[in-house]
Amino acid sequence: MDLHQLFGSSGEWLSAAGPRSDMVVSSRIRLARNLAEHRFSSQMDEEEMDEVLREVRDALNTVPSAENLLWFDLESLSALERHLLLERHLISREQESADGPRAVAFDENERISVMVNEEDHLRLQSLRSGLQLQQAYDELDKLDNDLSTTLDFAYDSELGYLTACPTNVGTGLRVSVMLHLPALVMTRHIEKAFRAIHDLRLAVRGLYGEGTEAFGELYQISNQITIGRTEEDLICDLEAMIESILTYEERARERMYENERLRVEDRVWRAFSVLRHARVLSSEEAMKHLSQTRLGVCMGILPQIPMADLNRIFALIQPAHLQHREGRDLSSNERDEIRARLIRDHFRQIDAL
Amino acid sequence: MDLHQLFGSSGEWLSAAGPRSDMVVSSRIRLARNLAEHRFSSQMDEEEMDEVLREVRDALNTVPSAENLLWFDLESLSALERHLLLERHLISREQESADGPRAVAFDENERISVMVNEEDHLRLQSLRSGLQLQQAYDELDKLDNDLSTTLDFAYDSELGYLTACPTNVGTGLRVSVMLHLPALVMTRHIEKAFRAIHDLRLAVRGLYGEGTEAFGELYQISNQITIGRTEEDLICDLEAMIESILTYEERARERMYENERLRVEDRVWRAFSVLRHARVLSSEEAMKHLSQTRLGVCMGILPQIPMADLNRIFALIQPAHLQHREGRDLSSNERDEIRARLIRDHFRQIDAL
Repeated sequence: MDLHQLFGSSGEWLSAAGPRSDMVVSSRIRLARNLAEHRFSSQMDEEEMDEVLREVRDALNTVPSAENLLWFDLESLSALERHLLLERHLISREQESADGPRAVAFDENERISVMVNEEDHLRLQSLRSGLQLQQAYDELDKLDNDLSTTLDFAYDSELGYLTACPTNVGTGLRVSVMLHLPALVMTRHIEKAFRAIHDLRLAVRGLYGEGTEAFGELYQISNQITIGRTEEDLICDLEAMIESILTYEERARERMYENERLRVEDRVWRAFSVLRHARVLSSEEAMKHLSQTRLGVCMGILPQIPMADLNRIFALIQPAHLQHREGRDLSSNERDEIRARLIRDHFRQIDAL
Repeated sequence: MDLHQLFGSSGEWLSAAGPRSDMVVSSRIRLARNLAEHRFSSQMDEEEMDEVLREVRDALNTVPSAENLLWFDLESLSALERHLLLERHLISREQESADGPRAVAFDENERISVMVNEEDHLRLQSLRSGLQLQQAYDELDKLDNDLSTTLDFAYDSELGYLTACPTNVGTGLRVSVMLHLPALVMTRHIEKAFRAIHDLRLAVRGLYGEGTEAFGELYQISNQITIGRTEEDLICDLEAMIESILTYEERARERMYENERLRVEDRVWRAFSVLRHARVLSSEEAMKHLSQTRLGVCMGILPQIPMADLNRIFALIQPAHLQHREGRDLSSNERDEIRARLIRDHFRQIDAL
């Protein structure tokens, strides 16, 4: 299966099948691992990077929990294909734009991915729909255990796993959840919620990770501490925080609807109707309206469009996805036109059901 | 028939039945007349104003061309009812807010109206759908002739008809046409067109006449000169100017569509869909979107909504019309909500046809 076939469908994490998919788009677990025999990625020459690639690939080929993973050498992919992988959250920004031998392996459902020669030699990722941190962790833990039988991970009995950046030392674990928080944004309570998050030493990030902006009122909440606590504790802490943020968001929605029902209805209907009729839509505007539409559906104001469809549209209207679909590079103006048409067509299909 | 029954329907001038109704909403002829035996309106006391009212009413009751006119004493109407008459262009702003005995008489189709004790003792008006200046003039001329057989109009053999304001002396004629000029506004050629109009000593005014703003890209073009030329010449001159403005507007539409087809389609579809789905609409926003919708229908971009429906909505969403419809005073917020509902309902009805 090649990349192009793969991106005809969409990742399982967009299926909205997981718990709390009304507000939680996805759960993600990431483990950073390095091979004890090699220098860290930033210190390696091409030859050594190739060795790491080979060793990891061999390991993936032998362990049972990796048997469904498809391997892609990033150097052999086009810039557009790499961008496609980024938009699907299968590789990081760094890995998209880095030089030298590097790879990613992932399964058809995009639930498990393994980046090789990123900041660390290995970045194992598990991505799930809705709030499913424990399930995502369990699956990844199995892969991690399997791999550690054939690969010698850099590990210190006192510090734990050694990583290129000290902030990842210890468990090498990042737990993150992508939340849709329109009511907290609209009622201007989001800053307060974020302060509480920071006080608990958790981080808030934009759509594509560290240093990226939040679009469509989507935020990634993740742990910052990776050392001195067990993986189970880190996951439990984050999960507890997520539960309270969801409660805040719920209350904000209720309050907003009580206090200014008409304004809320007006806003979501306008957003929905612009999506259905506009002929030109920038990515930012489309995400803004999709966010309002998502809210309107959850609040029972708009027709019950399946959340999976909204998630899918969200993914498909990204620039690389649009260009992949059209099979050619597109100017920004062309993208805005095609994005608008794609969204219109999608909603027409949904209507027809 | 009382006012409330009357405003259940809408004036014939909104029917879009006249020629060039795509761009010309209405044609209007106005004649200023004064009774030779009385001082001008601003100089009269209440008693004399009452006399004028009585004399005019008696005259209207005797001449055949006035037999369908209904008489309304403005002092006996509520502020809301007077505002309703203003929104229907049956009385002027001045007459709406003035004090003292004053009246208006008009027919059921709102084609002919006679204001009494406005700035002049009589302001005769004929209003028609589309571009029908000559027809409007002919009808009004007949009424004027009939009235002059029983009323003694102030007339000077050298100057012509004498009026309270020197700018109306001579024919006492104002010829005006309400045009919808969205493409000239959008392509920023409107100022150039207006300069040409001013050079010909014609005037451009907003929706409710002198000193009012233009909304919804609707402009009234009218003559400024009333003396030294015949009525026929004044009408011909204005009509020629209107024809060239319509040609400019047509070309601007064509050029705009050639050069930025997508932007035009985007704009009109967005406007149309906001009208169909918004829950809150200010008068200004609604008029802006109605203007774009009108343009979209004329250009064949939107479904062929009858122009009469768009004209009717335009009239019905005005504040006094909304309050009259609801039978009570409405706050600005309430009006915005009711206006949005009324527009949604109208478009749903049109859909159902």
